[in-house]
Amino acid sequence: MSHRNIRVEPMAGLAVEDQAVEIVERKGLGHPDSICDGVAEHVSQALAREYLDRVGTVLHYNTDETQLVAGSAAPAFGGGETIEPIYLLIVGRATKEYEGTKIPTETTALRAAREYLSTHFPELEFGTDVVVDVELGEGSGDLQEVFGDEGRSVPMANDTSFGVGHAPLTETEEIVLNAERRLNAEYASDHPELGQDIKVMGKREGDRIDVTVAAAMIDAYVDGLADYRDAVAGVREFVLDVAADYTDREVEIHVNTADDYDQGAIYLTTTGTSAEQGDDGSVGRGNRANGLITPNRSMSMEATSGKNPVNHIGKIYNLLSTQIARAVVAEVGGIREIRVRLLSQIGQPIDDPHVADAALVTEAGVEVADIQADVEAVIDRELADVTSITERVIAGELATF
Amino acid sequence: MSHRNIRVEPMAGLAVEDQAVEIVERKGLGHPDSICDGVAEHVSQALAREYLDRVGTVLHYNTDETQLVAGSAAPAFGGGETIEPIYLLIVGRATKEYEGTKIPTETTALRAAREYLSTHFPELEFGTDVVVDVELGEGSGDLQEVFGDEGRSVPMANDTSFGVGHAPLTETEEIVLNAERRLNAEYASDHPELGQDIKVMGKREGDRIDVTVAAAMIDAYVDGLADYRDAVAGVREFVLDVAADYTDREVEIHVNTADDYDQGAIYLTTTGTSAEQGDDGSVGRGNRANGLITPNRSMSMEATSGKNPVNHIGKIYNLLSTQIARAVVAEVGGIREIRVRLLSQIGQPIDDPHVADAALVTEAGVEVADIQADVEAVIDRELADVTSITERVIAGELATF
Amino acid sequence: MSHRNIRVEPMAGLAVEDQAVEIVERKGLGHPDSICDGVAEHVSQALAREYLDRVGTVLHYNTDETQLVAGSAAPAFGGGETIEPIYLLIVGRATKEYEGTKIPTETTALRAAREYLSTHFPELEFGTDVVVDVELGEGSGDLQEVFGDEGRSVPMANDTSFGVGHAPLTETEEIVLNAERRLNAEYASDHPELGQDIKVMGKREGDRIDVTVAAAMIDAYVDGLADYRDAVAGVREFVLDVAADYTDREVEIHVNTADDYDQGAIYLTTTGTSAEQGDDGSVGRGNRANGLITPNRSMSMEATSGKNPVNHIGKIYNLLSTQIARAVVAEVGGIREIRVRLLSQIGQPIDDPHVADAALVTEAGVEVADIQADVEAVIDRELADVTSITERVIAGELATF
Amino acid sequence: MSHRNIRVEPMAGLAVEDQAVEIVERKGLGHPDSICDGVAEHVSQALAREYLDRVGTVLHYNTDETQLVAGSAAPAFGGGETIEPIYLLIVGRATKEYEGTKIPTETTALRAAREYLSTHFPELEFGTDVVVDVELGEGSGDLQEVFGDEGRSVPMANDTSFGVGHAPLTETEEIVLNAERRLNAEYASDHPELGQDIKVMGKREGDRIDVTVAAAMIDAYVDGLADYRDAVAGVREFVLDVAADYTDREVEIHVNTADDYDQGAIYLTTTGTSAEQGDDGSVGRGNRANGLITPNRSMSMEATSGKNPVNHIGKIYNLLSTQIARAVVAEVGGIREIRVRLLSQIGQPIDDPHVADAALVTEAGVEVADIQADVEAVIDRELADVTSITERVIAGELATF
Repeated sequence: MSHRNIRVEPMAGLAVEDQAVEIVERKGLGHPDSICDGVAEHVSQALAREYLDRVGTVLHYNTDETQLVAGSAAPAFGGGETIEPIYLLIVGRATKEYEGTKIPTETTALRAAREYLSTHFPELEFGTDVVVDVELGEGSGDLQEVFGDEGRSVPMANDTSFGVGHAPLTETEEIVLNAERRLNAEYASDHPELGQDIKVMGKREGDRIDVTVAAAMIDAYVDGLADYRDAVAGVREFVLDVAADYTDREVEIHVNTADDYDQGAIYLTTTGTSAEQGDDGSVGRGNRANGLITPNRSMSMEATSGKNPVNHIGKIYNLLSTQIARAVVAEVGGIREIRVRLLSQIGQPIDDPHVADAALVTEAGVEVADIQADVEAVIDRELADVTSITERVIAGELATF
Repeated sequence: MSHRNIRVEPMAGLAVEDQAVEIVERKGLGHPDSICDGVAEHVSQALAREYLDRVGTVLHYNTDETQLVAGSAAPAFGGGETIEPIYLLIVGRATKEYEGTKIPTETTALRAAREYLSTHFPELEFGTDVVVDVELGEGSGDLQEVFGDEGRSVPMANDTSFGVGHAPLTETEEIVLNAERRLNAEYASDHPELGQDIKVMGKREGDRIDVTVAAAMIDAYVDGLADYRDAVAGVREFVLDVAADYTDREVEIHVNTADDYDQGAIYLTTTGTSAEQGDDGSVGRGNRANGLITPNRSMSMEATSGKNPVNHIGKIYNLLSTQIARAVVAEVGGIREIRVRLLSQIGQPIDDPHVADAALVTEAGVEVADIQADVEAVIDRELADVTSITERVIAGELATF
Repeated sequence: MSHRNIRVEPMAGLAVEDQAVEIVERKGLGHPDSICDGVAEHVSQALAREYLDRVGTVLHYNTDETQLVAGSAAPAFGGGETIEPIYLLIVGRATKEYEGTKIPTETTALRAAREYLSTHFPELEFGTDVVVDVELGEGSGDLQEVFGDEGRSVPMANDTSFGVGHAPLTETEEIVLNAERRLNAEYASDHPELGQDIKVMGKREGDRIDVTVAAAMIDAYVDGLADYRDAVAGVREFVLDVAADYTDREVEIHVNTADDYDQGAIYLTTTGTSAEQGDDGSVGRGNRANGLITPNRSMSMEATSGKNPVNHIGKIYNLLSTQIARAVVAEVGGIREIRVRLLSQIGQPIDDPHVADAALVTEAGVEVADIQADVEAVIDRELADVTSITERVIAGELATF
Repeated sequence: MSHRNIRVEPMAGLAVEDQAVEIVERKGLGHPDSICDGVAEHVSQALAREYLDRVGTVLHYNTDETQLVAGSAAPAFGGGETIEPIYLLIVGRATKEYEGTKIPTETTALRAAREYLSTHFPELEFGTDVVVDVELGEGSGDLQEVFGDEGRSVPMANDTSFGVGHAPLTETEEIVLNAERRLNAEYASDHPELGQDIKVMGKREGDRIDVTVAAAMIDAYVDGLADYRDAVAGVREFVLDVAADYTDREVEIHVNTADDYDQGAIYLTTTGTSAEQGDDGSVGRGNRANGLITPNRSMSMEATSGKNPVNHIGKIYNLLSTQIARAVVAEVGGIREIRVRLLSQIGQPIDDPHVADAALVTEAGVEVADIQADVEAVIDRELADVTSITERVIAGELATF
């Protein structure tokens, strides 16, 4: 039996899937908050790798305070233009020197930001459509050495914090998450008119699901109102098909409902994001670590993106609890819903949380007692393997928003 | 019967007070995230009043993106010094001219920031210990007129968003909330050594409550380690007394548990906030509108502070749902816990949400059906009075974090 | 005889006083360029003193790149208001740590800026009418120790640079210099309506001197156009009186000649400087070290204000050459005009310039040969005493603009 | 005879070429001050063209306050790296809307900066090695329309300012100017190790000329100290050859004299400019409009680069007076040196200055009276053609630094 403080209990209440009303939201890749999340996390990964390459250990840093100040643009059918650039300030701390070796933290951050933005936002010219600046303060000396690459010692928790994860996703969650992801992937590759700023809100009342999509269109690929209407219709069709992959419930899709064609008010942009037109953003204000905003579920306020994946306990526990929840559901039968919470214990190894607390809704005919040991075993194993979370974050394998 | 779509239903599950494990957190007034929340909201109120004074209507603005970049300091027993200033950038949008009248939006914002910081952070010299800058873009033209002072027309929702509120607070929540508030009020007035940066985390397992307090001490009022220990002990005593006002459960208080007296590692600051030493902050990353972070409860990700209280539906619905929850509990008997969710309907008046959804845990012997009509009546009345939320926000009567 | 390379020769040409056309300009205390000069120099002095107090030696720093970004204001008779703050960015380098002692360079800079602005610009509220920010990079390590307080070792020149000074001032120069200085001193103390932004241009053609003054008036002390006209007339009278102290030539004074009363175009400000209304500024773009811009005389492009007075050879040589010129004229008779140039020799002690080159216009009946030895002696003595320039700069006794 | 107030007189004194000591300096293309000049002027040209293209007239703007904050780098033989980016802030005013047409002033400025830097500084990666930001305030309304393209009306002078020009260049001036220009052109094209930051100082005592060159070398093209010595020797050879084209006097060339090979102190950079290592810069602090700093000659303090070429009288008169001086020398024989000064008259057409004052040193046997009429005629003609200066500036045909 594990030495860890693992609690497995029945959840008080219904699984989200069975509740009367469910609300789910996802801010897509090009939402100003998500741009900040994405840049912050990509910068974090780049810094971690740079530290490992140069000094063999990840030093103290955090880059989780990126702030986006919106620009202005004048979109027009067939192609408009940006007027004022979007301004992105990468704020944080990073160790700039270690045993005589200098680490080019600011240059590394800027290169990572360029790489991320160029990859995901081809319409945004780096340096002119978006100005990226960086201010990384010096990390505090006594916290600097945090992670070695030889051996995998488990760091101590340096804060009292917690993380929470859930599994499986509900149908509505799956639809919201995958609608955005697939729009920004397969659909966008064939439809250059679709911008990256896609916000999806799902609401389920009983067995009826309404999915509301706000999708920025890119003016260079939209020649007029008829084209725009086609673009909107195309998104609607596609999301309807996505939804059908995840549910048999009644689904209605609403796209760009704030448009008013008579007034000429449509969601047209030059760069594909509302950040070009007055919408500011920052890290940690949007999606949680599982990619969703889920008022029906327990959430952590922790900004996961941009945090140091070696010793930031809030980041690690949010990712790990999600990972544990998924693993339990994948490996143990009879579970309709699981919520896993990890609460850290300051000064203790992070693989030994103050409490690891799993609440279960089981399927009909299954008692928690029947599967408790199996669930505990999975939790125990995953906790023991906590440092693999760090490795996967650095390798860019785990999404944080 | 109301024309509004109000749903009152039993909650699936136990009241938080009755759940096995409960976690609650509050970032106090001087936490870098809360500093941002406070400045953003105070600036918002000042702008709203300025608009009303000058043009008789609140124009379009949002100031919810304040970013704090930490400074550095060298605290020392008896009084240290700041080395690099804290930098606070107020970011947002505001309408700068209206029918020929210019509004000094940036000067107003800076004065409000000065007023707020001077009132709450007497140790922080404005302009030298903390540099405040402001970048307010121009609000979009078509959204500019949003609120008149003659008559009280109800604005239309301009987004699909939701708010959520709860009542009553659990014992643990009361302790966490009031410990910080009373430390920063009555206790601080007698104990100048206590800084404003107080973070409180409460954890209840069954009938045992652990309250962990991280309290920044101000070096000018601490002459040595003995003094510091006394200061810590004083906080512990005080919080223990506060807790006794709200619970009969077993309570243990932990203050500044990361201290290591042998290493000389203590939580000593020059200005009373960790923002002086590397902790950055931003709006909306900390407490929800009810002043708490509550993973056991449904939360909205919306940053409430700094948003325009006239037409920002996320702000209004978070404050209103909290207000409704409290009113229902105050006026209708037999309720152990209520959760109120309001989901907006884009283009519809904000007093007519898409759905107002109340979930109840009733006391033993009370059925939801018994009180449903009373609950609905309170909700209906409060929805009808939605614009009073706006007025009270502008008057500074409603806390947002 | 001195070991120094001192050359004393007749000047080719007429003394400026005897040339047909003479042009002289002075940007007053409140001109945006002069605000930058003043802040930069005051910050420099404060840093030098801080270094001496803390580590007994002046370390490497330069703060000569202050940039002012203008604000906006809405002046109005009886009192207008600022709309957007003036933004002042103090840029430079400074050594932040020395043998374990931290120097609060940024806080020191901000305090010095506040002190300077509060003293000279009472209408400018620090932190709201003017936002001052600071970015001091780390000084390069190998240049850090530059000046001890025990003994007065003479530093080595670290650049090839030169300085130039003149004496005596011409009548036109005296008028231009003193008109501004006395307006901003005795006159302003009785006339609160006079702002600090006073630009004076003198032009002499033969024996006629035209003095053009642009003087910002402060709206709170000007109740209407009649008041404004009185204020303008008052300045004209005063400058006419000042001029009479320095010349018997014909003098005409022109004040605020760009005003157009019919169009309502007058030079009215809320804070006393055009920096409130779109005029940006930077260090080193205005007055030379003697307080004047003198196209009839040799000038150095060196920005004197804000430079380190211990080892910045351009600053020292501009101040020293002016000092030498004045001393020679004060002590040696028969000189109508002297120009002193000092050219440094990299790697050599700064009291031993590559060449110290004095060009003289003598009075009628005096030959250069008659006074050459006396002139050389003064130059030699002043060069030997070069480090007193540093001391006087740090003490704030030498004007730099 | 001209209606203009043109004065042609003998100069009091010797031509600079005949004076005993002459000092001349040029800050090359890659000097931090020159980088600012170049960017500011290129941005200015781009804005002027953008205005002409879009609204047919140049609107009010000035971009003459660019500020460079140095970065840091770690150069190394064979190729080092940048650590912190250079930060370049383009400050100024520009009219953003005109009769309903929006002008993308900030985007235009950033694109122009990118174009300029990419063309001249191939080693500086835009956006990562150098971060360029822009803050253009709104130009004042009443000054907005300044230059039409139909017809060529002559604008009124809006300030009292002056310009000064000289011809011909002395031998020392030719050497200093051309050494830098040719190093940065033909020499650099064959020698990639030579950076753009080349500072040249010339000193002539009698018939001996010393030319001191400080030339940043680029580490990627320098494999070791021997290579570096070769690079230095190459520059010395080349400059010696350049000098021989302009003088028969004795010339000595000194390159990178501050190097200390024993200490390993050499002028090695990663990007070719000292801006990568702590040297800040700003507009108007370096070369005058003729490309030189000439303490032997009358100079204007006006920052020419970045100013609006339509109505900024200081810019126009500095360029025009230089142009006049050259034209006179080219067309009228017998002139050893000419100095032309133009003083504006506020509110008068700029082709009619308050005084146009030419001072001549004639060759032996030539009296000023002999050529006075010819000189006046050239001056008169050039003044009449003042608007061609504006056109040539916009077309990028006139150097400003």
